[in-house]
Amino acid sequence: MQSEYVLGLDLGGTNIKARLVDLHGTILAASDLPTQVEHGPDHVISQLNSAARDTCGVGGVLMEDVIGVGVAAPGPLDMTHGVIEKSVNLPGWIDIPLVERLETSLERPVTLLNDANAACYGEHWVGAGKGVDDLAMFTLGTGVGGGIVSGGRLLFGHFGQGAELGHIIVVQDGRLCGCGQRGCLEAYASESHIKQRGRELGVFAEAGNSSVPALLAAAKSGSEPAQRIWEACCTAVGAACVTLQHVLNPRLILLGGGVAAAGATVLEPVRTAYASLTWKMARDVPTIELAALGNSAGAIGAAGWFLHQRGTA
Amino acid sequence: MQSEYVLGLDLGGTNIKARLVDLHGTILAASDLPTQVEHGPDHVISQLNSAARDTCGVGGVLMEDVIGVGVAAPGPLDMTHGVIEKSVNLPGWIDIPLVERLETSLERPVTLLNDANAACYGEHWVGAGKGVDDLAMFTLGTGVGGGIVSGGRLLFGHFGQGAELGHIIVVQDGRLCGCGQRGCLEAYASESHIKQRGRELGVFAEAGNSSVPALLAAAKSGSEPAQRIWEACCTAVGAACVTLQHVLNPRLILLGGGVAAAGATVLEPVRTAYASLTWKMARDVPTIELAALGNSAGAIGAAGWFLHQRGTA
Repeated sequence: MQSEYVLGLDLGGTNIKARLVDLHGTILAASDLPTQVEHGPDHVISQLNSAARDTCGVGGVLMEDVIGVGVAAPGPLDMTHGVIEKSVNLPGWIDIPLVERLETSLERPVTLLNDANAACYGEHWVGAGKGVDDLAMFTLGTGVGGGIVSGGRLLFGHFGQGAELGHIIVVQDGRLCGCGQRGCLEAYASESHIKQRGRELGVFAEAGNSSVPALLAAAKSGSEPAQRIWEACCTAVGAACVTLQHVLNPRLILLGGGVAAAGATVLEPVRTAYASLTWKMARDVPTIELAALGNSAGAIGAAGWFLHQRGTA
Repeated sequence: MQSEYVLGLDLGGTNIKARLVDLHGTILAASDLPTQVEHGPDHVISQLNSAARDTCGVGGVLMEDVIGVGVAAPGPLDMTHGVIEKSVNLPGWIDIPLVERLETSLERPVTLLNDANAACYGEHWVGAGKGVDDLAMFTLGTGVGGGIVSGGRLLFGHFGQGAELGHIIVVQDGRLCGCGQRGCLEAYASESHIKQRGRELGVFAEAGNSSVPALLAAAKSGSEPAQRIWEACCTAVGAACVTLQHVLNPRLILLGGGVAAAGATVLEPVRTAYASLTWKMARDVPTIELAALGNSAGAIGAAGWFLHQRGTA
């Protein structure tokens, strides 16, 4: 009998999230381990192995009964050869053949996918985008990533770096982004830029607590700089939604990642900004919604992608 | 023996362009007729019929020997049902079942495609994008349209209005576009906006000659307002190329339409603007080129699309 288990591993700069799921994407077992990037690639790969084996243990499943393993990792990466070429979030990783390494140690087949694409694929497979063949997702985290499903397929583009939605230019000659461009969405709507801007404008009462929730609390208490920063974030996301509407014409745009944990506090002003910025010429209006799978989206999507590549999902 | 002839008709606001092509997209006969939109849909459909029959006559081919007819028309349109829903360029056209009308009068099968998508498909089929499976095209004409080929397929999106690339927002709170949005690419890079801006800034010596070539001549003679307008146009196109790079990750971006007739005068500054605005993080740099099929692109692409839909191209 065909096994019904597949493992998803989401390799983040801080944590590894491992999820054992069934063929319907339901989580059967989960474990998180620290990535400990500072100890280098060999150590991180050993952590990935431990996370995989721990999760099987929690689920009471033998590794040999797992169909395979999907890995989500920060890019740029070479999906075809399963290699992480280089990553801002994984310092010292240059051309690491991650798929080969994990296939050797886990003795299971492994696939590799960009983490934001994986989150989008997870939402498309079993989350807020289930059944929607044209959707885009923003992952508003430390940075801003994205994923696109177009005509039912993940969009990668010629170079495989498609859906880097954080680097849509929303403000001409705007704020400098970590990527070197000016006016990127990421320079307004990422956790790191929101926090940096909050520090620049003296929003945070306690120096040690410069978080997005702290900024939102300050905005709620009437801090005008905090309100301006949040409005700039939501306006930037709304403008990027307009641009995606006209380029991709999706039915659905999802907001995920840490910033989207603010729920209605981010969703409503983004919808308002979008509605005020977009045309009224055609009824091609995407729905804007929050993502549903939380921080399991990447691991679930990686598992789903493994099944998709094997022709099972 | 299977016929080797297919007709492409490009229904523009001013002219109808008809091209008889072979299965390789080579033009065998051509004719242009005035659209005469002011006489209403029935007259225009009769002009389309005349253009089709004239072109067959020029090519010495009987209409019954033509496999079928592809029509390119301004949107929004309903491709599936072959209906033009409404168009800025075709006043008075509301829900006209163009495909049915032409199939009845020409007694050939007919397909319908958005005109900018048709131009992009034509370039992909036999023009500057031949063999390129991930490309985007800007049609810089009276308005700015666009087309996208992603993974070898035209991108339509959920509502069928995809690749409206003229309405990518390039300037926050920028110039008002005819569509009601602010800061659209079209508000900087369309012929109508370039001319309007030129008139506003007093660029044109002769009131009757407010054309793009006249503005370029003024810029060349040292007119600073004319130079600023042109720079704003090319910078806007360059910024839109950056955004498309990160969303679609194409190998190639083509510039077509009347503004692109300026050749190197538009291509070089767009390339320079793109290079100065984009990131240097990854080597996912699209080539920016001029389109190759000139004002036959839409008709050729419509013919190619007919063959594609019939599984022949």
